[in-house]
Amino acid sequence: MYRREFLQTTLAVAALAQAGPGVTRYVRFRRGQAMAYGILDGDTIRELEGRPFAAQKETGAKHKLADLKLLFPCQPPKVLAVGLNYKSHIGNRQPPARPELFYKPVSALQNPEDPIVIPSGAQNVHYEGELVIVIGRRARRVTAEQAREAIFGVTCGNDVSERDWQNGSDKDLQWWRAKGADTFAPLGPVIARGLDYSKLLLQTRLNGKVVQKQYTSDLLFDCPAIVSFTSQYVTLVPGDVIYTGTPGSTAAMKPGDVVEVEIEGIGILRNRVTAG
Amino acid sequence: MYRREFLQTTLAVAALAQAGPGVTRYVRFRRGQAMAYGILDGDTIRELEGRPFAAQKETGAKHKLADLKLLFPCQPPKVLAVGLNYKSHIGNRQPPARPELFYKPVSALQNPEDPIVIPSGAQNVHYEGELVIVIGRRARRVTAEQAREAIFGVTCGNDVSERDWQNGSDKDLQWWRAKGADTFAPLGPVIARGLDYSKLLLQTRLNGKVVQKQYTSDLLFDCPAIVSFTSQYVTLVPGDVIYTGTPGSTAAMKPGDVVEVEIEGIGILRNRVTAG
Repeated sequence: MYRREFLQTTLAVAALAQAGPGVTRYVRFRRGQAMAYGILDGDTIRELEGRPFAAQKETGAKHKLADLKLLFPCQPPKVLAVGLNYKSHIGNRQPPARPELFYKPVSALQNPEDPIVIPSGAQNVHYEGELVIVIGRRARRVTAEQAREAIFGVTCGNDVSERDWQNGSDKDLQWWRAKGADTFAPLGPVIARGLDYSKLLLQTRLNGKVVQKQYTSDLLFDCPAIVSFTSQYVTLVPGDVIYTGTPGSTAAMKPGDVVEVEIEGIGILRNRVTAG
Repeated sequence: MYRREFLQTTLAVAALAQAGPGVTRYVRFRRGQAMAYGILDGDTIRELEGRPFAAQKETGAKHKLADLKLLFPCQPPKVLAVGLNYKSHIGNRQPPARPELFYKPVSALQNPEDPIVIPSGAQNVHYEGELVIVIGRRARRVTAEQAREAIFGVTCGNDVSERDWQNGSDKDLQWWRAKGADTFAPLGPVIARGLDYSKLLLQTRLNGKVVQKQYTSDLLFDCPAIVSFTSQYVTLVPGDVIYTGTPGSTAAMKPGDVVEVEIEGIGILRNRVTAG
């Protein structure tokens, strides 16, 4: 069952990897005991020396996509996220005057196809399908124009959120558990570089049913604006990621559910939900 | 002037390093272009191969403390902090029922003797002298007793906080800027291992005047309780640090100020404040 789904995703990733001229797709993968980065080309991965952010050099090794495990596509020094950033998600609430950021810990990152684990005591764990910015160059106090150059590419993310810990009866002072519990940051599988990310269709599916559907053009603060504003206070470095916010409404997931975040031109991030 | 202060700190660190049987003091340092960890022994540092958390092996190299630059004493995958954790800081507010955590980004870490930079637009940047836990072993869903084993040692920290962004007129949704701006997490210089951290005198001085003074025995949630609770949701790994909260009251700093956090048996963390 899992294997069949994995192959389906593999095929979906491969199909997407053929779309779009001028777009390069990067992945991080495990093959046996080794971890490496690579460029996805159809159903083949061309292995890179080191991370893709600096000068890229191919090792010459090529692998079949089906022979390896895709991991979250970079190892970010830090993970930021933006709240209340789609008009359709804000609804009747006051739109924020500036990007409202928060941190997710790197321990929350989860690979494509690996489980979202509902923590002990959690009652209300929601999906949040999101476009995620991947930083490629150090950015400190940059303008929106400079920010475009600092953005390496974009990927798919699920900003998993426990609503009772975030805003409900069991609310914490800050969102450290609500947004930061282990496995609450699925990411990947592909970083798309060279893609126009200003108007991409984002869809989230729960057990195959579309539950979120919105273009990224509906973002209140777009990617360069987010990066520029963040960098006035917090220096961004290569590999850092920023989840840009979720559109529309969200709902609770339960063990056994399968959640997919698909973004046009990027790929599909799929995770099963399990009990902790 | 700076040089004289640096030497004073060096002497203070060295003096403290001789105190306490059964206590080992670890530092991280830069010497020329190289970075390494070491054991502080009087005014000498015995260099280690790699990080001190796993099996420790000395390289055989010894350095004079005065010949090198002390850095924040580990490179944490993540930085957590606890709010409202001293009875004297809570005052008339309702004490929390459980540790109230939040994240600081690794980009906020600052070395001893390097500046705390007041960001553009910040009006109300406070010191918060704190005992900081350094994790030595992976901790996932551990008991308080197991947590003691996961704690490698303790160091000094300053949980620098912009109060207007945290709780004031210019409040953000979360504390990402208030607690996370660049240089807002001074740490070090020494990790003390083998020290009983349950009743240590913590003092913060602003320009030489004592502005916070409290024993760590006044902590609402002690170190093992914090680690155990955190680990129920967020897995801790070697090198992770947790700022444990600040006692008493705090006040704003201005460019030119010098702030020191001294903890009995550990050492002195000193930073100058500069304009951004």
